[in-house]
Amino acid sequence: MSNPMIAEVTRGSIVESRHTGSYAVVNGEGQVVAAEGDVAAAIYPRSAVKAFQCLPLIESGAADRFGFTQEEIALCCSSHNGEASHVRVAQSLLAKAGNAEPLYECGAHWPLHEATRLELIRGGGTSLSVHNNCSGKHAGMLALARHLGADPHGYADPAHPVQRLIARRMGEICSVDLDGQPVGIDGCSVPTWAIPLQNLALGFARFSDADNTAARRIIEAVRAHPFMVAGSGDFDTLLMEAVPRVFVKTGAEGVYCAAIPHAGLGLALKIDDGASRAAEVGIASVLAGLDVWTPEERAQLARFSHHGLVNWRKIEVGEVRGVLL
Amino acid sequence: MSNPMIAEVTRGSIVESRHTGSYAVVNGEGQVVAAEGDVAAAIYPRSAVKAFQCLPLIESGAADRFGFTQEEIALCCSSHNGEASHVRVAQSLLAKAGNAEPLYECGAHWPLHEATRLELIRGGGTSLSVHNNCSGKHAGMLALARHLGADPHGYADPAHPVQRLIARRMGEICSVDLDGQPVGIDGCSVPTWAIPLQNLALGFARFSDADNTAARRIIEAVRAHPFMVAGSGDFDTLLMEAVPRVFVKTGAEGVYCAAIPHAGLGLALKIDDGASRAAEVGIASVLAGLDVWTPEERAQLARFSHHGLVNWRKIEVGEVRGVLL
Repeated sequence: MSNPMIAEVTRGSIVESRHTGSYAVVNGEGQVVAAEGDVAAAIYPRSAVKAFQCLPLIESGAADRFGFTQEEIALCCSSHNGEASHVRVAQSLLAKAGNAEPLYECGAHWPLHEATRLELIRGGGTSLSVHNNCSGKHAGMLALARHLGADPHGYADPAHPVQRLIARRMGEICSVDLDGQPVGIDGCSVPTWAIPLQNLALGFARFSDADNTAARRIIEAVRAHPFMVAGSGDFDTLLMEAVPRVFVKTGAEGVYCAAIPHAGLGLALKIDDGASRAAEVGIASVLAGLDVWTPEERAQLARFSHHGLVNWRKIEVGEVRGVLL
Repeated sequence: MSNPMIAEVTRGSIVESRHTGSYAVVNGEGQVVAAEGDVAAAIYPRSAVKAFQCLPLIESGAADRFGFTQEEIALCCSSHNGEASHVRVAQSLLAKAGNAEPLYECGAHWPLHEATRLELIRGGGTSLSVHNNCSGKHAGMLALARHLGADPHGYADPAHPVQRLIARRMGEICSVDLDGQPVGIDGCSVPTWAIPLQNLALGFARFSDADNTAARRIIEAVRAHPFMVAGSGDFDTLLMEAVPRVFVKTGAEGVYCAAIPHAGLGLALKIDDGASRAAEVGIASVLAGLDVWTPEERAQLARFSHHGLVNWRKIEVGEVRGVLL
């Protein structure tokens, strides 16, 4: 493995920790516009492909049939904070399609948003599946199961019609036959198929295509409701609020993907060691280095490519920074 | 940088993430018994040297003067969970030396132990400095300030007599003049001096020396009270309960150090990217590979060199494993 340095963490005058990785920027014809590292290696995209997993929900007509709003579609593509509005929208997605919380197969965890979590615990509440950061995606999958006339139970199983349809669509947009790829179980228990990084970037380039009406609807939904995709203080939300012309999505274990519709480009990045802190500043620095932005947009992206590191007393002790800019 | 692979994280049939790093095993004469990677590079040892920071507390006579118990000395070397007994012992350390919680300069955070944290929040409590995982070390530093007749305020400052004494002693045992080394601010606001990995291992080899009476007292304290050093379910506590002849201590950003008194060896390990999950299985695999154990001890250490990875529904989805065994 000889992937290049993507991010560094400093403390005082020296670099304390280092993160290597790989990335590919690809256009809709599959041409590599920029890349470093082993972009042929297959990686698990994890939550970075929630927008791809959402495509069949739109294309099958399920979203229209159940009257899903743009806010609700945005939550289907989210790794959310479990804040009150996220929970409300997830519950609406379930109710509109005739589903209910006991059908969830994502598992429960406390809301990721600290103030929400503290309020819930102080009130004697418990962690629920609807608080799971993937509860929007799972509500979309349950709606798709209903629309397909399939048993909603077991919708997370790789052999369930919902996952088969998602695998076929995701394989198509990335030009990879997922049946021949390694498959893992994601944190929320749905399958995650391994996809070469370059093909993942190709998928996001095709997702950027103006002729892809379902993708355009998803991108517009997320652009209109960036809070739904993550939440208060979260990188995805803040970056898309600052630069609305980019679509970004994080995935566990150091994955980040992006679509740049106005330039027809897709981007995929993986940090070798799986660190989110490196993936965040890494994707911002790769994006900022592309020649497709206004000076204002580029300045915003550069701003997200580094941030201070503070300790328990809020003393700034170092910096997390992308090294590609 | 060409440090070797130390740990891998698998999911399904493939390796999802990878952690490189370096380690050195050194004897009391400074001879390298085993090493891989750049062991001349200076790293911040962070909390892995709490036992060194505790030496002046013993050697100055402060611990005897204030009547500190072995349990209390163990807490001075801890990164603890904030469980009830940790808090009780920290408060005792403060009280015996005439100090009090408002003097703490470590900052507050919620107890790391989940059940303790939930109980505290449900009861309407707030996070306090005494819950900080470093509150034992800081109570020791405050006691040392009293013993030296120094103003306890500002004891975390690198120029304070407490930190000067610690820097001199730590530099001595590691054979490094810390005045010439980079210094950062630790998570708990005390200085952390950069030390070459090989010298850090030398320090722990000398710490293993039977003639080092203060070190022997610390090792015996930790051996008698491994719960005090970390807590329920924590790696340091579990490993020292399973293999009492080893002394191990974790530090932030992927550092692990160990002393093996019966063999007169010291060990220091740093994961390049700062991941604790890799440092844990890494130190266990390096230890297990040394020819200084009974078969039972070696089997225990090997057991700690890998563990399953479970998702939100407790499904085992992969493994975290040291690759050096």
